[in-house]
Amino acid sequence: MANIIEPMERLVNELSKLPGVGKKTAQRYAYYLINGSMENATDLAEAIISAKSSIHYCKRCGNFTDKELCDNCLKSDREPIICVVKEPKDVIALENVSDFKGTYHVLHGVISPLDNKGPNDINLKSLLERVRDEDVKEVILATNPDVEGEATAMYIANLLKPLGIKVSRIAQGIAMGSELEYADVMTLNIAIDNRTEM
Amino acid sequence: MANIIEPMERLVNELSKLPGVGKKTAQRYAYYLINGSMENATDLAEAIISAKSSIHYCKRCGNFTDKELCDNCLKSDREPIICVVKEPKDVIALENVSDFKGTYHVLHGVISPLDNKGPNDINLKSLLERVRDEDVKEVILATNPDVEGEATAMYIANLLKPLGIKVSRIAQGIAMGSELEYADVMTLNIAIDNRTEM
Repeated sequence: MANIIEPMERLVNELSKLPGVGKKTAQRYAYYLINGSMENATDLAEAIISAKSSIHYCKRCGNFTDKELCDNCLKSDREPIICVVKEPKDVIALENVSDFKGTYHVLHGVISPLDNKGPNDINLKSLLERVRDEDVKEVILATNPDVEGEATAMYIANLLKPLGIKVSRIAQGIAMGSELEYADVMTLNIAIDNRTEM
Repeated sequence: MANIIEPMERLVNELSKLPGVGKKTAQRYAYYLINGSMENATDLAEAIISAKSSIHYCKRCGNFTDKELCDNCLKSDREPIICVVKEPKDVIALENVSDFKGTYHVLHGVISPLDNKGPNDINLKSLLERVRDEDVKEVILATNPDVEGEATAMYIANLLKPLGIKVSRIAQGIAMGSELEYADVMTLNIAIDNRTEM
């Protein structure tokens, strides 16, 4: 970029690596940081380094943690049910709102041939080990209801079923509070097919 | 937030201080940084500290610089015309696209009674000093064409005119490439009032 001084250009370049951030947004962030207090800038820089250096994957379930095992795995009141999700933020979403009181297993991705991601590129081996070593009653597959998420759920189900374990998939249908009028064809079809008796 | 480990919560809090960034976006940035390489995180943290500690205001025009005077002020081929703008990013915008070859003066804000910002809260005193000490031919007022920008331009014009200096305002009217149909009433009125003979 012409007419931008070097430290500013460097900051804008680094900020525009963040997901969904273009040059204009990065410039806005950079101006905010430079116009703000030194303390504010230092706090952000330190938070980045501290988070990056202390956070790693939980040895058991793959969720983010700064200890050996994550908080959910350390809780003793959890039922022996494993909920398989794509990303750590899915765990937060479920923990924040749902009544689910089992444990989780974070895949850190889904099977996606287009992105060159096969079964060996996701955190799947340790799920099989958990099913073998722990006294697991059920595995709930909670990957997203998109093409890759469905394919990954199917793949895992086919791996687990021969082991004689109960495998389920989160329910799909019309979202609560939404309107039939605006639902897409796939969702409507699934909502009809999966209807429940009242 | 429940179920978020401390270093992650701290990072999300710091990131959500950026302008226009809410909790969800901050979480997205945080996950990106934690899933990325240590080098990437360090680069961003260092760029923040380096920019914040090296960048300050140009002694003459108030633009951002890491030296005593900014690059524009150091150029010897600039005409003795001062273009007054609200923010450093306006200088970049003008330098990147326009044929203007004068110098700039950055106000770092505009007069805005609603935000408790008066004439003493913007970089105005040094503009008067420049007009007095430098051999200035013209001052172009290029604040934004909104209420505060117009009021600030008017205020500065009233200060400078008694000094016998030529003061002008950037042209306002229909933007190039836009359509009359979608222009607002104010813009249309100004475009008619300020029509130029062909």
